[in-house]
Amino acid sequence: YGAQQLAANDPMWGYFTAIAGQDGEIDAEELQRCLTQSGFTGGYSPFSLDTCRIMIAMLDRDFTGKMGFNEFKELFTALNGWKQNFMMFDQDRSGSIEHNEMTQAVNAMGYRISPQAVNAIIKRYNKGGRIFFDDYVACCVKLRALSDNFKRRDTMQQGSVTFPYDDFIMCTMAI
Amino acid sequence: YGAQQLAANDPMWGYFTAIAGQDGEIDAEELQRCLTQSGFTGGYSPFSLDTCRIMIAMLDRDFTGKMGFNEFKELFTALNGWKQNFMMFDQDRSGSIEHNEMTQAVNAMGYRISPQAVNAIIKRYNKGGRIFFDDYVACCVKLRALSDNFKRRDTMQQGSVTFPYDDFIMCTMAI
Ligand SMILES: [Ca+2]
Ligand SMILES: [Ca+2]
Ligand SMILES: [Ca+2]
Repeated sequence: YGAQQLAANDPMWGYFTAIAGQDGEIDAEELQRCLTQSGFTGGYSPFSLDTCRIMIAMLDRDFTGKMGFNEFKELFTALNGWKQNFMMFDQDRSGSIEHNEMTQAVNAMGYRISPQAVNAIIKRYNKGGRIFFDDYVACCVKLRALSDNFKRRDTMQQGSVTFPYDDFIMCTMAI
Repeated sequence: YGAQQLAANDPMWGYFTAIAGQDGEIDAEELQRCLTQSGFTGGYSPFSLDTCRIMIAMLDRDFTGKMGFNEFKELFTALNGWKQNFMMFDQDRSGSIEHNEMTQAVNAMGYRISPQAVNAIIKRYNKGGRIFFDDYVACCVKLRALSDNFKRRDTMQQGSVTFPYDDFIMCTMAI
């Protein structure tokens, strides 16, 4: 009762159960199929399986490699935000985000990182100087997950965190 | 003279220059083509462009997004090691690395990480419980690069490092 009842009244519940199949959870292949078929990426290329895997990893707090209903809704909210953000900062309508546009997008998302860090990010995610939607989302997912992991440990909000090696590897390799 | 002369005598120099083309450096597309055409992946699937990009990112200390000759040779040495390692730890000859095999492989590479961290890594890189060669290499590259970044900062070898937020983002997002 309770949570289950509420979920059943949610307009996205039927959609979720259709995608999730028998096990009631969504894995990377199912997510990729759903985002492609729903036309979410529109004129942009469909998401790679790898991007779908890191989307799930971002939200997968119980480490099952799959998404339940609440995680699925959380992901859709985030995805819609990133899509709007992508279209808004693609100011020259090139269909991709270039260097200046990326600096603005990162700032607009509220991340306070140095130009050097923005450069490192662009180097990693660009193809011929352009960041396409799929890579942009992969980048946003990682940036959010890493920042969340950092903040969760920065309990005194000092802007720095001491990581034991094992914890560092676990929270960076999982994404 | 000097370095250039030595390079010209190296049997891999001709191969490198043929791949690198006019700019004298190898980017992700060139690396992917070269690893596919050379038959390096053999019976395994070819490397994805994303894996090629993180291979370059690992060695790209000057952040150009490309590889020079010495970095190229360093990568080949690492790749040969990982390939041998992959074949050796695929004990049931399934063509992929499963959970137990991964634990052994990570230990054999000399990483001291907890079973929990190994689980997190497997969750991220498996497809249906199996880790394929392409993902295995992506995983090894990341593990090596993150461990290198960590060790470089752990000058007193205390096993823990204090990261300011910006440095944390830069050294984890670049890979
Ligand atoms: Ca643009
Ligand atoms: Ca080149
Ligand atoms: Ca195996």
